[in-house]
Amino acid sequence: MADSYAILEDQYKKILNKYLQEKDEQGLYHAQQFSKKVMENQISPEEMVSLHLEIIEDLFPNLPAGARDSFEFLLEVMIGYGLAYREHQSLRDRQK
Amino acid sequence: MADSYAILEDQYKKILNKYLQEKDEQGLYHAQQFSKKVMENQISPEEMVSLHLEIIEDLFPNLPAGARDSFEFLLEVMIGYGLAYREHQSLRDRQK
Repeated sequence: MADSYAILEDQYKKILNKYLQEKDEQGLYHAQQFSKKVMENQISPEEMVSLHLEIIEDLFPNLPAGARDSFEFLLEVMIGYGLAYREHQSLRDRQK
Repeated sequence: MADSYAILEDQYKKILNKYLQEKDEQGLYHAQQFSKKVMENQISPEEMVSLHLEIIEDLFPNLPAGARDSFEFLLEVMIGYGLAYREHQSLRDRQK
């Protein structure tokens, strides 16, 4: 069953926070597992970047405004990857 | 002809910087054009996030360390999208 966006968001916040505190290999392993999970849940790359932004805004309320705004710009660039990603899913489904 | 990574990096820095100063629609249009360009140059989504990190570290030397470290974590998640992106290119090439 697909996880809801809120569940994924909550989980990402937990594993990112843990990684920032402990900075260990296990944290990067959690990131890889999370990567598989977002792919399974068909979260697009721009949604993933957007989720990341929401969490770091929450974790770092003093983030420079420009750094936050720069994410809007990155999101716009990631949309191209999102289109390719959806095309990929459709090509792959056709080959099944 | 493919643009070198250094040229893309330089261009991204210029358009991002201009966007952060002027925050206008034209900036977002530049982001869309840049998105097309990185796709043409087969830059993977994790390379794009890595390029973004390099530029914002340069533009915001006082970025909180945790915010910078959080990018390492995001990069690890983006690798899954990178794999799907390369698979997409190979499926698409096979259909040509």
